[in-house]
Amino acid sequence: MALSAAARRELDRILGPRGVVDGAVASLAYESDGLALIRGTPEIVLLPRDTAQCAAALGVLAAEGVPVVGRGAGTGLSGGATPVSGGALVGMARMRDVLELNLQDRFARVQAGMVNVDLTNLCAKHGLFYAPDPSSQQACTIGGNVGENSGGPHCFKYGATTRHVLGLVIVTADGQVLDLSQPRLEPDGYDLVGLFVGSEGTFGLATEITVRLTRKPAAVETLLAVFGDLDGACDATSDLIAERLEPSAIEILDRLTIEAVEQSVFRAGYPRGAGAVLLVEVEGSETEVATTVRDVTRIARARGALEVRSARGESERKKLWAGRKGAFGAMGRIAPDLYVADVCVPRTRLKELVLAATRIAAEKRLKLSNVFHAGDGNLHPNISYDRRNPDEVERVLAAGREIMELCVAAGGSLTGEHGVGLEKREEMCLVYGDDDLAVMRRVREAWDPARRMNPGKLLPVRGCREARGASLPRRAAPDHAPQAHGGSGR
Amino acid sequence: MALSAAARRELDRILGPRGVVDGAVASLAYESDGLALIRGTPEIVLLPRDTAQCAAALGVLAAEGVPVVGRGAGTGLSGGATPVSGGALVGMARMRDVLELNLQDRFARVQAGMVNVDLTNLCAKHGLFYAPDPSSQQACTIGGNVGENSGGPHCFKYGATTRHVLGLVIVTADGQVLDLSQPRLEPDGYDLVGLFVGSEGTFGLATEITVRLTRKPAAVETLLAVFGDLDGACDATSDLIAERLEPSAIEILDRLTIEAVEQSVFRAGYPRGAGAVLLVEVEGSETEVATTVRDVTRIARARGALEVRSARGESERKKLWAGRKGAFGAMGRIAPDLYVADVCVPRTRLKELVLAATRIAAEKRLKLSNVFHAGDGNLHPNISYDRRNPDEVERVLAAGREIMELCVAAGGSLTGEHGVGLEKREEMCLVYGDDDLAVMRRVREAWDPARRMNPGKLLPVRGCREARGASLPRRAAPDHAPQAHGGSGR
Repeated sequence: MALSAAARRELDRILGPRGVVDGAVASLAYESDGLALIRGTPEIVLLPRDTAQCAAALGVLAAEGVPVVGRGAGTGLSGGATPVSGGALVGMARMRDVLELNLQDRFARVQAGMVNVDLTNLCAKHGLFYAPDPSSQQACTIGGNVGENSGGPHCFKYGATTRHVLGLVIVTADGQVLDLSQPRLEPDGYDLVGLFVGSEGTFGLATEITVRLTRKPAAVETLLAVFGDLDGACDATSDLIAERLEPSAIEILDRLTIEAVEQSVFRAGYPRGAGAVLLVEVEGSETEVATTVRDVTRIARARGALEVRSARGESERKKLWAGRKGAFGAMGRIAPDLYVADVCVPRTRLKELVLAATRIAAEKRLKLSNVFHAGDGNLHPNISYDRRNPDEVERVLAAGREIMELCVAAGGSLTGEHGVGLEKREEMCLVYGDDDLAVMRRVREAWDPARRMNPGKLLPVRGCREARGASLPRRAAPDHAPQAHGGSGR
Repeated sequence: MALSAAARRELDRILGPRGVVDGAVASLAYESDGLALIRGTPEIVLLPRDTAQCAAALGVLAAEGVPVVGRGAGTGLSGGATPVSGGALVGMARMRDVLELNLQDRFARVQAGMVNVDLTNLCAKHGLFYAPDPSSQQACTIGGNVGENSGGPHCFKYGATTRHVLGLVIVTADGQVLDLSQPRLEPDGYDLVGLFVGSEGTFGLATEITVRLTRKPAAVETLLAVFGDLDGACDATSDLIAERLEPSAIEILDRLTIEAVEQSVFRAGYPRGAGAVLLVEVEGSETEVATTVRDVTRIARARGALEVRSARGESERKKLWAGRKGAFGAMGRIAPDLYVADVCVPRTRLKELVLAATRIAAEKRLKLSNVFHAGDGNLHPNISYDRRNPDEVERVLAAGREIMELCVAAGGSLTGEHGVGLEKREEMCLVYGDDDLAVMRRVREAWDPARRMNPGKLLPVRGCREARGASLPRRAAPDHAPQAHGGSGR
């Protein structure tokens, strides 16, 4: 559906000359997010400066019946910001202001386009930081993080974005402004803010976000444990969790990832040739940190670590983390494209499922590497490929599906932090039945009755019974008879 | 709307003779919850044994168009379980089974009628507990806790119910079963489980609940600090929070509450004649606990504590907590009825708002006492009254409204943990506008299009603009200009 000339003039008037982009620039710069496999062309790109401009623009688009896709920095990995239905793409690049910084009650209110790390940098001198730290935090926006309920290495301790969002200003599909920005301990009535986080732009656009700020710990130490193979690193993770240890982050990088990082600008000093490294961060008081570091070292050694060392000072600590966070980028050395899977598994089955993903990739002649949030059980089996090779693309997607099926069947989930988007839309039927999805559809329509906000994302296009008739098995229903698993009691 | 004879026979068949109650027993036993001010009469009371019975019964009720009110133990304080529209009341008293106990991944799946403390007792021998601990935990059910998103003293550290619910089985208004019981790190797609928690029975009935189990800390110590007045206890709380201390609970009891507790069966050994006591619990490793206890003691003394002492052993610790948790019951010594307000305020304004509530009660010649979750800023200004005195009841309700208005205007909220229910339904307009509430109404209809589940609760019956025309002011919209508050940076 094309915009009328009158609507176009109205948008120009509302947003000014720098607020409207179209033609080749719009097509090229906004055709996809980090899921390079699927692309689209927006009819028009709008770059509002504030909530009022955004609301006025959405009012115009509503009258025209045009689809609307929101976009932060486009670092998402599930196609959430890809304009597959054309229409208007609303970018948050010109909405980067801090609106309020309340140091006493420890919250900030920011515009949705604020870059994640900028908020942490802004409040660092007050001993505070913004806890969710996606690998893309140098680029991704807090608004995008809200859309995807993003995680990050330290979300093992601090929880994903939803735990840190205290309030929102939301522009709805028809251009209304809902002011839910007041920070609250628990919501009065239904938790609309909690519901909105992770809704992937299908309800409306969050334009202002009130977030909790977290106090920096008194002491922090980063340990690097080097293993001959991935098994040892996985086993050590299981042991860390089974014991009473609670580091703030537990990350694993495998051999291929280490190689790629060490050959890249993110070079972190990971030992070349190692089978895997385990990166563990410990926070707390000086004495707590010392005790936990001793325990982590003992456990890693018991699981065969060849070496366990502490970062010497802040600069080496930062370097170890820059390597981890640059890992996806570094994989560009191996192949032009990278498919980043994002499954969760019970942490007691970490090793088994990492090995299964490796086997699936090998069967399909694909190059798989692993870099993941081991503490959360949030795996990222990554497949390096070249999207110009259609046969390889097919095999990548098939492997992705098989990995998801396997992890869901093991009691895990489709996505840990990257969202469902386009990529995992049909796989929602692995986790939910048609009745569950019918409630989700109606909840979505409670916000956006015309379904113009980010159409084609998050919810399967076909019914699950129909799709399952074709191929998809559903997770076995839990057995409702009384039973007791496990037994360590730790 | 009366049930047909055929429907009644069908319910008898589904639920058996012990599963259906009506007549005088139903009227008396189920006429209200802990909000004694408002009562209703259910046409019929249903007591299913499991999800299947509950679903079949709700199917029958749907066909008849009968309203449905869910009820746990009826300990709620906002009228959520009061059958004000008649119809069917579904009680969970015969659904108390543990369906699954997974010690390795640390979760339990229980029926909705399980008593809160029973779950903790059940897993205590494995070093685990269920963290949300309402004062009513000896009686209240986990299903009721889900409905109200209940808190408790230790939710200062651990968060309210919503942080501990990993999955749900939900029976919808028309008798469908949604199986969302699989525990997940973060939800795939919309967070239906998170949305359901705190929906006060207006979406459907949660029949099975998957909850996170928490590991017991290595060490725990409970401190009692005695103050000459409430001010000192409030100031000490603000200081505890402003410093880097993180106890697991910070509770305050005032003079009147101490007197009532010490004269009751909950006698805890609080010093008679004290103006206030501050109860602080500290958890962690042995060394952490020792350090924090020292710091808490120093802060309390600096704010004028007359005495600071540690509970000697587990039995004294339990006694101190039993006094706190029995405080609402103990107030029965002062007057036949107790109105428990449940407002939240920014913790930096604790003292100011406690004093304001005291002033409001004095102006209305009411007896006010205070016992509250100071750490969370969750106040419970309690008013002792006699519901047989209609003039006094009027003054109680007016004082409650004034206290809510004041706290919301100060940036707080209507409810910390007791829900909106009947009592605070119209006051939702203090926090939200008509546009916000319109979204809430549509979200509710996404679950229950006929609005038969717990009608008359949570959402205002009148529009806010209309109500405001009469009396209600709305909270000032936040100022959208950049600004910086505070400055301690701690």
